[in-house]
Amino acid sequence: MNAGKAKKRVLIVGGGFGGLRVARGLAGADDLEITLLDRRNHHLFQPLLYQVAMAGLSPAEIAVPIRTVFSRQSNCRVILESAAGIDFANKKLKTTGLGDLDYDWLVLACGSRHSYFGHGEWEDYAPGLKSLEEATEIRRRVLTAFELAEKETDPAKQRRLLTFVVIGAGPTGVELAGALGEISRFTLSRDFRRIDPERARVILIEAGPRILPTFAEKLSDKATRDLEQLGVTVWTNTMVTNVTAEGVVLGGESVQSATVLWAAGVAPSELNRSLGVELDRQGRIIVDKDCSIPGHREVFVIGDQAHLEEEPGKPPLPGLAPVAIQQGRHVARNILLELKGKPREPFRYVDKGQMATIGRRRAIAQFAGMEIAGFVAWLAWLLVHVYYLIGFKNRLQVMWEWTWSYIRFRRGARLIVNKDWRAPLQTPTKPAEQPAPVESLPPPATQAPA
Amino acid sequence: MNAGKAKKRVLIVGGGFGGLRVARGLAGADDLEITLLDRRNHHLFQPLLYQVAMAGLSPAEIAVPIRTVFSRQSNCRVILESAAGIDFANKKLKTTGLGDLDYDWLVLACGSRHSYFGHGEWEDYAPGLKSLEEATEIRRRVLTAFELAEKETDPAKQRRLLTFVVIGAGPTGVELAGALGEISRFTLSRDFRRIDPERARVILIEAGPRILPTFAEKLSDKATRDLEQLGVTVWTNTMVTNVTAEGVVLGGESVQSATVLWAAGVAPSELNRSLGVELDRQGRIIVDKDCSIPGHREVFVIGDQAHLEEEPGKPPLPGLAPVAIQQGRHVARNILLELKGKPREPFRYVDKGQMATIGRRRAIAQFAGMEIAGFVAWLAWLLVHVYYLIGFKNRLQVMWEWTWSYIRFRRGARLIVNKDWRAPLQTPTKPAEQPAPVESLPPPATQAPA
Repeated sequence: MNAGKAKKRVLIVGGGFGGLRVARGLAGADDLEITLLDRRNHHLFQPLLYQVAMAGLSPAEIAVPIRTVFSRQSNCRVILESAAGIDFANKKLKTTGLGDLDYDWLVLACGSRHSYFGHGEWEDYAPGLKSLEEATEIRRRVLTAFELAEKETDPAKQRRLLTFVVIGAGPTGVELAGALGEISRFTLSRDFRRIDPERARVILIEAGPRILPTFAEKLSDKATRDLEQLGVTVWTNTMVTNVTAEGVVLGGESVQSATVLWAAGVAPSELNRSLGVELDRQGRIIVDKDCSIPGHREVFVIGDQAHLEEEPGKPPLPGLAPVAIQQGRHVARNILLELKGKPREPFRYVDKGQMATIGRRRAIAQFAGMEIAGFVAWLAWLLVHVYYLIGFKNRLQVMWEWTWSYIRFRRGARLIVNKDWRAPLQTPTKPAEQPAPVESLPPPATQAPA
Repeated sequence: MNAGKAKKRVLIVGGGFGGLRVARGLAGADDLEITLLDRRNHHLFQPLLYQVAMAGLSPAEIAVPIRTVFSRQSNCRVILESAAGIDFANKKLKTTGLGDLDYDWLVLACGSRHSYFGHGEWEDYAPGLKSLEEATEIRRRVLTAFELAEKETDPAKQRRLLTFVVIGAGPTGVELAGALGEISRFTLSRDFRRIDPERARVILIEAGPRILPTFAEKLSDKATRDLEQLGVTVWTNTMVTNVTAEGVVLGGESVQSATVLWAAGVAPSELNRSLGVELDRQGRIIVDKDCSIPGHREVFVIGDQAHLEEEPGKPPLPGLAPVAIQQGRHVARNILLELKGKPREPFRYVDKGQMATIGRRRAIAQFAGMEIAGFVAWLAWLLVHVYYLIGFKNRLQVMWEWTWSYIRFRRGARLIVNKDWRAPLQTPTKPAEQPAPVESLPPPATQAPA
């Protein structure tokens, strides 16, 4: 409620697809003072994160420093900081390190994290894929498993090392499983002398009756056949009842696996529970049609963190990048309208379809009433994803990277990089502050001089 | 001493410049069984490692999986493993995880590690630059320092965060200091709102009377002026007497700095001390003119791990990549000669000169009696380094990367990636298993949702 010439403050929490679009949508509004908070220094192009985990791309190819995005937008300031709570009455955002920050408008765009459905202890054995850290951890585990298998003489232990389990068959799970199949079939096939990477088992586990349940059934079947051709075993209607150091337990069955990956569920930011606002069953904040919190019109929530029903009774908008992007742009537009004293407009999602890729040259896509599969769908997938990569340089580079790996069947980022910068080689287990289960992953390959 | 048709075994420890050349030099020798051990899965192009630390290149651009190098060389096997000792009498290499391995010829090419001259405790505050892990740790510290300075309101603390100290003015120290100067002058100049990165202090500390002491004095002076133009302060004849959480102590003086980098000294592999063979004062193994250990003709030592005097009384060969490369090729040739029953030849080092780069377009070089400096030297430096990058793809990509950053003054790999894959944001201090000094680096920027 600053009067007169004082600049109005827009506070944006989160530099993902949504938050970034809000700030960019407000470029040029010189009577605004925008602050974007993120606890990381980079914006991440999440749809290609599985490529980092699967050693196809380097982190820098799908991430860009948030500062760089805004270096020429003088009304926007970027801070490496975390939100701790909101004082709605006084319009203050509580931060962890910077104290309280005043706002006239606040945009929450914090995204989501993994949900292990009440089994947080599974995370050590089955990392998910949300951050660059997790992606490089997965890459390290996968590559280390092959290395240890090459040294292993016990056939049972070798089989466990060469068994890869992916839990959850949404787009991320399918992409991970497809890439794992491809790595063992093509990329690594020449590199080992004692093991045959082609005999690696890749198992994709889905609790529901079919993979990619948001797609048409025909496409889901097609994707299953594509995966099987890459050597992936697809187990549907299969519930994971436990994940341990040894592998996964599936009711009465069990599979020994050194590398289990989690792609089964997400939950919104933990911040939500502390706000005293209405949440849906999954913990997302229920918002009005203009993306604001009922009763707190100056606070918007967008992307995975929000529950927005376009029509009463219709399912809420899905947690997809296009939803966050469109909501981000929309919120910026509404703030600009309000600045001019005009009324807000309700948000309308324009569904541009969805796509998922299976391995190096197959995909499925449905949009505008069409359903396509195979190489053409893959090309479409490639174009859309490269187009949306923020930053011209990254686009060209990722294109080049893919063209090259497409020709050569190579994966350029096949590096095992350890967690501790001082230790030459580590066991890929849990961090040190918790008691590590002895068997949680392949045995330590030690630190003596080599 | 395997008779008749049995294949002879060549064991190579270390996949650096030297070890790689030995194994490649033996390609096609079908009566040999070559095993290359390394505790890491990748060969690292060390001369460009400072570019990873300074966010100019991604790890995958200067590293290649050792397996990939040998995927088509069928007589060579690669194992992720560490050497623990040698049983000379029985011709066995002791390994940490695989037990004893027999050899007919053994090549030690373990390289060197940092030496803190008896002050190992300095490492926490002043990491060195030998591995990808260390390079990304340095990158994380440098970028985090700027981020924390942007948030800091206390001028003294802000100055400490914006002070970068590099200890040791050999080529690595000069390259690090030059890049730090450039980052603050050009790369980051637009990105911050409250701090002015151009006011960052970069201090290069050298105990000797001049920087780059192995170069001609004229070139060393030129490099000093180039550094000063990039905003680097050069302090020669300055001894570091302590490195603490606060910064560095220099006898009676002290400098507060959140980011201290170590480029002052190296020591050979710890393995050497356990072998019971003659070492020089620095701990390198003294070898004969054919690179073998006196009294153990079938064991070669090359590269940084070896002390080889071409003429009695002359200084030993320096710890440079070209020495390791030439020795590696030479050892392979001698093994092939011996296979044919011919006598070995002594090693002769062909000195091709030396070069060092200062920032983005200046370098100094001396070769064939010539001394050059400036842009031409930088172009020569660029060509030589890109030419020697192993793997065609990497060369093209690094060229492209540099061309781009040269045009745009950008650094594409400016990512802060945390050590623990599960923690969103961490304090850049020591690993958890040791009691972390509270003040060891900038204060923790926490882990709450953002």
